[in-house]
Amino acid sequence: MLVVMKPHATEAEIEAVVEKIRGLGLTPHPIPGAQRVAIGVTGNKGGIETAQFETMPGVADAIRVSQPFKLVSREVKEEDTVIDVGGVPLGGKALAVMAGPCSVESKEQILEVAHAVKAAGARFLRGGAYKPRTSPYEFQGLAEEGLKLLALAREQTGLKVVTEVMDAETLPMVADYADVLQLGARNMQNFSLIRRLGAIRKPILLKRGPSATIREWLMAAEYVVAGGNYQVALCERGIRTFETMTRNTLDLNAVPVLKALTHLPVIVDPSHGIGLRAHVAAMARAGIAAGADGIIVEVHPRPEQALSDGQQSLLPREFEELMRQVRVIAGAVGRSV
Amino acid sequence: MLVVMKPHATEAEIEAVVEKIRGLGLTPHPIPGAQRVAIGVTGNKGGIETAQFETMPGVADAIRVSQPFKLVSREVKEEDTVIDVGGVPLGGKALAVMAGPCSVESKEQILEVAHAVKAAGARFLRGGAYKPRTSPYEFQGLAEEGLKLLALAREQTGLKVVTEVMDAETLPMVADYADVLQLGARNMQNFSLIRRLGAIRKPILLKRGPSATIREWLMAAEYVVAGGNYQVALCERGIRTFETMTRNTLDLNAVPVLKALTHLPVIVDPSHGIGLRAHVAAMARAGIAAGADGIIVEVHPRPEQALSDGQQSLLPREFEELMRQVRVIAGAVGRSV
Amino acid sequence: MLVVMKPHATEAEIEAVVEKIRGLGLTPHPIPGAQRVAIGVTGNKGGIETAQFETMPGVADAIRVSQPFKLVSREVKEEDTVIDVGGVPLGGKALAVMAGPCSVESKEQILEVAHAVKAAGARFLRGGAYKPRTSPYEFQGLAEEGLKLLALAREQTGLKVVTEVMDAETLPMVADYADVLQLGARNMQNFSLIRRLGAIRKPILLKRGPSATIREWLMAAEYVVAGGNYQVALCERGIRTFETMTRNTLDLNAVPVLKALTHLPVIVDPSHGIGLRAHVAAMARAGIAAGADGIIVEVHPRPEQALSDGQQSLLPREFEELMRQVRVIAGAVGRSV
Amino acid sequence: MLVVMKPHATEAEIEAVVEKIRGLGLTPHPIPGAQRVAIGVTGNKGGIETAQFETMPGVADAIRVSQPFKLVSREVKEEDTVIDVGGVPLGGKALAVMAGPCSVESKEQILEVAHAVKAAGARFLRGGAYKPRTSPYEFQGLAEEGLKLLALAREQTGLKVVTEVMDAETLPMVADYADVLQLGARNMQNFSLIRRLGAIRKPILLKRGPSATIREWLMAAEYVVAGGNYQVALCERGIRTFETMTRNTLDLNAVPVLKALTHLPVIVDPSHGIGLRAHVAAMARAGIAAGADGIIVEVHPRPEQALSDGQQSLLPREFEELMRQVRVIAGAVGRSV
Repeated sequence: MLVVMKPHATEAEIEAVVEKIRGLGLTPHPIPGAQRVAIGVTGNKGGIETAQFETMPGVADAIRVSQPFKLVSREVKEEDTVIDVGGVPLGGKALAVMAGPCSVESKEQILEVAHAVKAAGARFLRGGAYKPRTSPYEFQGLAEEGLKLLALAREQTGLKVVTEVMDAETLPMVADYADVLQLGARNMQNFSLIRRLGAIRKPILLKRGPSATIREWLMAAEYVVAGGNYQVALCERGIRTFETMTRNTLDLNAVPVLKALTHLPVIVDPSHGIGLRAHVAAMARAGIAAGADGIIVEVHPRPEQALSDGQQSLLPREFEELMRQVRVIAGAVGRSV
Repeated sequence: MLVVMKPHATEAEIEAVVEKIRGLGLTPHPIPGAQRVAIGVTGNKGGIETAQFETMPGVADAIRVSQPFKLVSREVKEEDTVIDVGGVPLGGKALAVMAGPCSVESKEQILEVAHAVKAAGARFLRGGAYKPRTSPYEFQGLAEEGLKLLALAREQTGLKVVTEVMDAETLPMVADYADVLQLGARNMQNFSLIRRLGAIRKPILLKRGPSATIREWLMAAEYVVAGGNYQVALCERGIRTFETMTRNTLDLNAVPVLKALTHLPVIVDPSHGIGLRAHVAAMARAGIAAGADGIIVEVHPRPEQALSDGQQSLLPREFEELMRQVRVIAGAVGRSV
Repeated sequence: MLVVMKPHATEAEIEAVVEKIRGLGLTPHPIPGAQRVAIGVTGNKGGIETAQFETMPGVADAIRVSQPFKLVSREVKEEDTVIDVGGVPLGGKALAVMAGPCSVESKEQILEVAHAVKAAGARFLRGGAYKPRTSPYEFQGLAEEGLKLLALAREQTGLKVVTEVMDAETLPMVADYADVLQLGARNMQNFSLIRRLGAIRKPILLKRGPSATIREWLMAAEYVVAGGNYQVALCERGIRTFETMTRNTLDLNAVPVLKALTHLPVIVDPSHGIGLRAHVAAMARAGIAAGADGIIVEVHPRPEQALSDGQQSLLPREFEELMRQVRVIAGAVGRSV
Repeated sequence: MLVVMKPHATEAEIEAVVEKIRGLGLTPHPIPGAQRVAIGVTGNKGGIETAQFETMPGVADAIRVSQPFKLVSREVKEEDTVIDVGGVPLGGKALAVMAGPCSVESKEQILEVAHAVKAAGARFLRGGAYKPRTSPYEFQGLAEEGLKLLALAREQTGLKVVTEVMDAETLPMVADYADVLQLGARNMQNFSLIRRLGAIRKPILLKRGPSATIREWLMAAEYVVAGGNYQVALCERGIRTFETMTRNTLDLNAVPVLKALTHLPVIVDPSHGIGLRAHVAAMARAGIAAGADGIIVEVHPRPEQALSDGQQSLLPREFEELMRQVRVIAGAVGRSV
């Protein structure tokens, strides 16, 4: 940490900060400048609460120098994490392709989609049984019935099941059925729930909160990993900005930034990221070109009848076409599908 | 709803939309324009999923005309909701003043603050026993021990207790101790939890999510009210923007907008809203002047030693001074403290 | 500045940074930490380009410690700047009240408004003769004819004229007619134009850009002051965020933050700040309560016929009522109108 | 346009709106709903000022149905615009690759870069002679001397010159030297200047403002085209969001959205879009994969000595490597370099 004094801070104020630092068992390093004094702080193991300095007289600012995340950092573990999902890799050279409907709606629907995306090359089936919805009057998911249908689809196709967990109560049941547990964007900082995800031994797909910084997102992952569950993948799904023509703003900058900061796999969700069916394929291609370790895409056989997210779901044949493009882009960046 | 066709939509495409509307049991109203046709839709009770139209050939857009919230709307209930918190009003002409530390840290601390804010004129004591923290390595609260200390402070001062609930597991216990349950900003769209808050009969202070639109925030309140719990107050605590000099951007625009849209009380949190102790009082005054029904302010006797949020906590004597200012502003807008 | 090295930076990399600092004629202060080394830099007069360090091997980050603005800073000049606009103060204890239509539309319109806002207590008349419009097909202002009408209104009422300047070509003419030159939000970083404003000797009302940080805004003011024109007032008029129910998000946090950082007067524009006529008065009150030195408000006798901004213009009688409220709030914060 | 009445609007209020519409020479289409009445409006040629309805009693909202841009729209011109820059296409199947330093700094520098980027495959040389800088104390460019050096580089390499114009005063001179005039992000809504760009006959590279919506950006292009200059290309260079780890948030969503809405070419600027040298290549690849018609990239032989933007400039050999990647991605999406 660096404590920056005000230009006219008195000797006594500077001394008080130096003493405070020593009192915490740390080492102060005063740097006298032309206009002001700054005091470097060393010797700390974890983060220091900056407020205890910012509130002292004569202090202008207290600046953190280190990143607050540790276990998820490349500084701690250099090589890429590859999660083994029952034999299918999530992370590493082979792209993880996840596809399926927003919500599981019926046996016919989920089986039709599962067979179609399998045929097109997906290895994971996505589908929601519990749906977080902005309005209490919207379709909320089939609950356990939906989970059973996902399991049936897995049995028929061999696809791994990715599905969302919304709360601690249903976590054991969802974990029973799922191969990968998705934590939704609105729950990214539901700390009670992410702490639970650290205590289980299932892979987690951690979606970025709509207004979460990359740092906060990595801190959420740190919660899970600090709990002992090292099988975490991050999913960029768009952030909230002023732009209203698209549902979210897919922040592909996050992909190379994350790949440099963390060893965890990074997945891109172009469906939520742009929210417009006609443009999902373009953003899936862009995600792969930016260096993502996989994509998660909404596919529905009859989007106009979908109970949720129809406007951003691809038709099976559109997904098949997308997979052809993804294969080419993957090859161009040294990846395979 | 209004379905807007593309300029060159064919007769057949227009007819298909008209048929689709009829098929849903609704009434189509085609409006032929110079450049394009639009089709009004009437007869629906709740909202219509716009996606089912947006995905049809020849359709440019489907625009919702009604607001999706009902029970929290002034259109449904004109007069202001005043929540009776054990004899102390939350909402209505008298301002609700809530104050206390970010976290309950010790018996001495909470009692000292409680007596101080009581003496200055507060009617509610805030204090966190369960703390959602960005980092797993930060102080997470005293848990039930903290709740007991809050109850002790209530016993000694008569202040009503406002404290945060973080999950369903601890909800019964927190509800046992609290007079008002606070739902934190990061949990505003934790739909499992807000659904539970609809099932209990305790007043709820619903903080706005950092990137929640006013509409989404009202929809979250709608979840609680639709569950049968009508005792909901909204708390503006700042939104996330590009500005980095302040912790959040306190959106005081939301105050008059909400007062027009909903009958629920609106509270302002200047502490989180600006995040800088020196400026909390200015924003508290501004909140009252904008028409808020109360304020919630962080107060700590020794901010430089606070385990959380020290940089935005007022000293007891600063809070006392703030209350003097608040009284004057309250008078200027026809309110009392 | 502080240069932060990566955890595994080599001795040679650290030495290269130290040498680089010395080569610039500055003094390096290495601070060896447990995990990494940081190097303080002192001896610089102005800002240092951080990039020259960020691009060196082994460097994690280069952090600026000082603010980049100088002349507008309270560190340079402690007492408030009060601009004398032909006998009427802008800044200081008395609030500066500016009111008038968005655009000057006709002789009848501007005179009617001028007399009305004068009677209600305004000392400045606002009105646009040159209008920056998002669309080339919208009303672009009366140009010099509008300026003449403003001058006529000044003659009849004694109000000081505030009007926008859009480019260098019309600057001499606008400066001829105006008492205060307004620089519009979209031109806040039109550096060619603001440099010109530094070369003239007229008061400037510098509106904040819709996505300008407080720091960038102060840097724009620094351009004007560095050019020799010390008569600059800042105008908060709302920033762009994700919220769509209001035209902009009025950032009242900026008011106390600016009052602490700079000696320049701070004006609030509630009309653009919220963009909804029904709520302009609430935000004007809030601005004053937050500590602003004045307000600028759109007033039009027939908003439904206004050629621009009708949806956010007050009727003259609404403005009169607002002035009554402003007086009370002003008194509550030790100001007068 | 659609005028939506409040639920309890009276017959008289509805009638007043109907009369108002007729008074404007337009045709009203009342649609009586269960809860409220909406009134469609047809017969207008351009946009209608919604405010004249929003301010009427009983009106809840006035919603625009058509997009406000015309000439830049694909509805007006279906086929892609390909700008002929002295024999080099901007737009169309071949990607336009633009590269060069942020600022022209010296003869040696610009010639060294020009030869290097030419050898790597670029067809356009970028370089600023007039630099808009946030601080008045930073390097402001070599002015005409810089333009002459760009012309010299063109002479030696055959590269087309792209350089920024900052104001009307220097426009004739800059237009004399440049092949493509760049309008900077901060000037996107400098309407005086963009109107001038409509009056000349040089290709324009119109950068997106940091907080401009796609609609506003297209309206700025509409200004130029409405003035008679059809040679406009759009350049996505990142928008401002809450994320601070990157300089801007490159909004690649804008690429497919624009390609659907407009016939103008779309260029991506990964250098400003992410602002971190290590990640520029990833974002350039992503831009091409998303469907952009070209890229503009900052290249400098000694970034650590650059007078501006060193932290985001590629070394010549990094650019060469990037071009290899771009060629592969281009092939994957049916484009060539």
